[in-house]
Amino acid sequence: MWSQLSSLLSGKMDALATSDHASVVSMNMFVALLCGCIVIGHLLEENRWMNESITALLIGLATGVVILLISGGKSSHLLVFSEDLFFIYLLPPIIFNAGFQVKKKQFFRNFITIILFGAVGTLVSFTIISFGALSIFKKLDIGSLDLADYLAIGAIFAATDSVCTLQVLNQDETPLLYSLVFGEGVVNDATSVVLFNAIQSFDLTTIDHRIALQFMGNFLYLFIASTILGAFTGLLSAYIIKKLYFGRHSTDREVALMMLMAYLSYMLAELFYLSGILTVLFCGIVMSHYTWHNVTESSRVTTKHAFATLSFVAEVFLFLYVGMDALDIEKWRFVSDSPGTSVAVSSILLGLIMVGRAAFVFPLSWLMNFAKKSHSEKVSLNQQVVIWWAGLMRGAVSMALAYNQFTRSGHTQLRGNAIMITSTTTVVLFSTMVFGLLAKPLIMFLLPQPKHFTSCSTVSDLGSPKAYLPLLEGHQDYEVDVGNHDDGTEPTIARPSSLRMLLNAPTHTVHHYWRKFDDSFMRPVFGGRGFVPFVPGSPTEQSTHNLADRT
Amino acid sequence: MWSQLSSLLSGKMDALATSDHASVVSMNMFVALLCGCIVIGHLLEENRWMNESITALLIGLATGVVILLISGGKSSHLLVFSEDLFFIYLLPPIIFNAGFQVKKKQFFRNFITIILFGAVGTLVSFTIISFGALSIFKKLDIGSLDLADYLAIGAIFAATDSVCTLQVLNQDETPLLYSLVFGEGVVNDATSVVLFNAIQSFDLTTIDHRIALQFMGNFLYLFIASTILGAFTGLLSAYIIKKLYFGRHSTDREVALMMLMAYLSYMLAELFYLSGILTVLFCGIVMSHYTWHNVTESSRVTTKHAFATLSFVAEVFLFLYVGMDALDIEKWRFVSDSPGTSVAVSSILLGLIMVGRAAFVFPLSWLMNFAKKSHSEKVSLNQQVVIWWAGLMRGAVSMALAYNQFTRSGHTQLRGNAIMITSTTTVVLFSTMVFGLLAKPLIMFLLPQPKHFTSCSTVSDLGSPKAYLPLLEGHQDYEVDVGNHDDGTEPTIARPSSLRMLLNAPTHTVHHYWRKFDDSFMRPVFGGRGFVPFVPGSPTEQSTHNLADRT
Repeated sequence: MWSQLSSLLSGKMDALATSDHASVVSMNMFVALLCGCIVIGHLLEENRWMNESITALLIGLATGVVILLISGGKSSHLLVFSEDLFFIYLLPPIIFNAGFQVKKKQFFRNFITIILFGAVGTLVSFTIISFGALSIFKKLDIGSLDLADYLAIGAIFAATDSVCTLQVLNQDETPLLYSLVFGEGVVNDATSVVLFNAIQSFDLTTIDHRIALQFMGNFLYLFIASTILGAFTGLLSAYIIKKLYFGRHSTDREVALMMLMAYLSYMLAELFYLSGILTVLFCGIVMSHYTWHNVTESSRVTTKHAFATLSFVAEVFLFLYVGMDALDIEKWRFVSDSPGTSVAVSSILLGLIMVGRAAFVFPLSWLMNFAKKSHSEKVSLNQQVVIWWAGLMRGAVSMALAYNQFTRSGHTQLRGNAIMITSTTTVVLFSTMVFGLLAKPLIMFLLPQPKHFTSCSTVSDLGSPKAYLPLLEGHQDYEVDVGNHDDGTEPTIARPSSLRMLLNAPTHTVHHYWRKFDDSFMRPVFGGRGFVPFVPGSPTEQSTHNLADRT
Repeated sequence: MWSQLSSLLSGKMDALATSDHASVVSMNMFVALLCGCIVIGHLLEENRWMNESITALLIGLATGVVILLISGGKSSHLLVFSEDLFFIYLLPPIIFNAGFQVKKKQFFRNFITIILFGAVGTLVSFTIISFGALSIFKKLDIGSLDLADYLAIGAIFAATDSVCTLQVLNQDETPLLYSLVFGEGVVNDATSVVLFNAIQSFDLTTIDHRIALQFMGNFLYLFIASTILGAFTGLLSAYIIKKLYFGRHSTDREVALMMLMAYLSYMLAELFYLSGILTVLFCGIVMSHYTWHNVTESSRVTTKHAFATLSFVAEVFLFLYVGMDALDIEKWRFVSDSPGTSVAVSSILLGLIMVGRAAFVFPLSWLMNFAKKSHSEKVSLNQQVVIWWAGLMRGAVSMALAYNQFTRSGHTQLRGNAIMITSTTTVVLFSTMVFGLLAKPLIMFLLPQPKHFTSCSTVSDLGSPKAYLPLLEGHQDYEVDVGNHDDGTEPTIARPSSLRMLLNAPTHTVHHYWRKFDDSFMRPVFGGRGFVPFVPGSPTEQSTHNLADRT
């Protein structure tokens, strides 16, 4: 991604780097707007319709209008949308944090389902959108698009943005649903970016069996190699911190090393032309499973909240950015002579998105339900509708991919490209605003639960769902955990039918052997819960008893 | 600073923004080196001579040599030294953290002394170095330098870097000494940058009384306005967080708002052409006095360590950077025909630095001792030598200011300028390595204390000296604090002599009235210790009792 964008985009960062007074004014306004979004988002927390993302989007749009009026219709944004900024600075913390905060037990228990939804589902969605667009758009007059463009459209609109739904779902009341939507969203992001990269790196003007196979091979290679690299970097950080036991000297060193290693994993992926997104995701998962348990109490609290905060700010930043960029007048000029075409294209894309998602959510859910015996693990039709709805929103990933495919340095001269950019903007705005606004009432209607929107919950931290346990982090806790790894939602795995067995048993078997392997080999080497050497008089112990004055 | 650097430096950031594969390789190496510095710094923690800064500097130098050999003598650095990077990304977190972590009771109790050392002392040092250089350099053949250049040299070499000494001093055993060295270092950084800006913004080709007065006025205006802006932003953040009580919903919002407001204070200072360094310093102090007490327990731990970590990484980054840049071959070519001159200039500067510092440390210490009655508050001669030594090192601020004054976009064609750049590099390297390496043994020799270098101290966190108090943060604690604000080191203020009264009484009176004002007006409005509304069932309370499972 990086290397492809390089020559095209180096000019763009200038807008950010050029430090004249105008850009200082812009930066001030932008930071002030970010603060405003956070405060307003907080005030609207209890509102029935709103959430942080939509607030930021609306504030961005409003600011765009004000700037458009002040500048006399010349410009609508404070900063030019840049894929570099997006892929290098904003997306990595969001994805890393997603991996870092994921409830691993739920994630790994539902691993096969999540991969089915996230990877296979995205491929289904991609195929339907690509070929739907290919067959319908040819009848419309939208300029010249080749096969690679249509495949790119598929990848662009297969990238979901489930942040609106996740802000509404309560993971304590519907853990399975939350875990599915969350896990699918994360895997989906990575899959669509890997897919997009695979498309860009192939010459798809002529297509035959050999190229299709190569394409699949390339996709799998990117997927697997990136995962391994991420896991490797995460394990390396765990090993270093465990061996050296930094906590003895300094919390800051531990936190610094975790941050730098996370960033390093991303940079290494770029170095080896792999997918940084996927790498950083798995680095986050491994770090929270091993490294996080090797550091001091203070480092745990710090990393947990610092990563969540970075991710939170990046998300608000993104929505603000997309809101402002949506009104960019230059792009709309190309389509102003044929508004009907643009509306038609956007509507068709929205339709394809809905069909493409329905085409895998309901069949896969049925398959999943068929494989589960216990009623509590089945996904009801209402829940299926929620899963379907949760992935209808399109966000910043789609925007960034569309910019990358259809513009050169943020500008375009081709009619077809301009229409695709404006349609992407329309789809992102419409889906986030309309589908996003409806998410809260829809979920309240479909999953009526009395305590769903109480505001004083301890776990309402955005994107940092786990409550932390400050004192019970010892061997005792570990034993509880081992004894409890079926976690009560499922009384027994006995008597599976044959197809059930096929789908269900491997998950449990894999999970079971993984636990065994983890306990007997991985944790003793890399640390993790219950395998942290307890040093008497270490800061972990002292920090809670030290009542020294602060002033 | 920003606006001045703008046009000159926009080209430089390209080197960072240009995202071709070569720069990915550089970034990887740089991040890996940072990790290496942290690990090696940790391993050398107990070493008698080394500390983090010197380790980073040496690793930087070694890497520079390797790159020089690989590139066949063409280049020695991975990234070009850029003042933009330094003043916009690296210095603000360091200075903000300094303000945020300062022990405010010690800082404000010794406020007048710290200001005397930090501001008046820097001015004395600046004057001696400027006029010393002016009178001596004219006899050497070093090209054309005008008056503004000599004044800039004074400001450049008045900027101390006491980080090496602070890593050695133990603030629990010698709180007064630590507070003086730390406070002076922070005020010194700000003073020298403000001084440098004031010099640059004045036409000093002709000097008369009117211009000198204007210069002083400008300096005072920058100093005071920046301080007020910083305090204002800090108070605003405290007020917003107190009024809205974010903790009820989300730790991440609080942390995000604190980070964004801190950055906003810096950007606002740039907007109004003030000194961002000074603004961000006072913003940090105010935030730690008010805002920090208004947030949840988790936010406190997170901000404390996250800011310290950012500052720590920025420091290591800087020393690594300076080490690599020192071998930049281009600059040395100019001076290679007259190595004698360069050595002479560097030696003279080192001499002037030592004299300039002695010229205020010993007289001001004498004055201070004269004003103090109790023996325990006096500064012994040995301690005075430590204070003197602590400020002999020169660091990244000097480098950045020298680049700004003597180069255009990092390059120079003038012989005089090239000599000043290489001399600055030499002085920085020599002072950090030689004086820095000697700091540990010197302090061990001058202040022999048995437990000085034990490694298992809870407060050995680099740059985050305060131990945090997790549970005693209520009204009870507040009363203890109020009843205790003479803190035992000084039994009474009675019977001061006239000069003692003149110097000592105001400090105590100011401190006393400030406490009264703070308790009766500021804290009730802006929060702070003991004035945080206690909400039953708030996350503060629950987080310690919530033992929910994490996996």
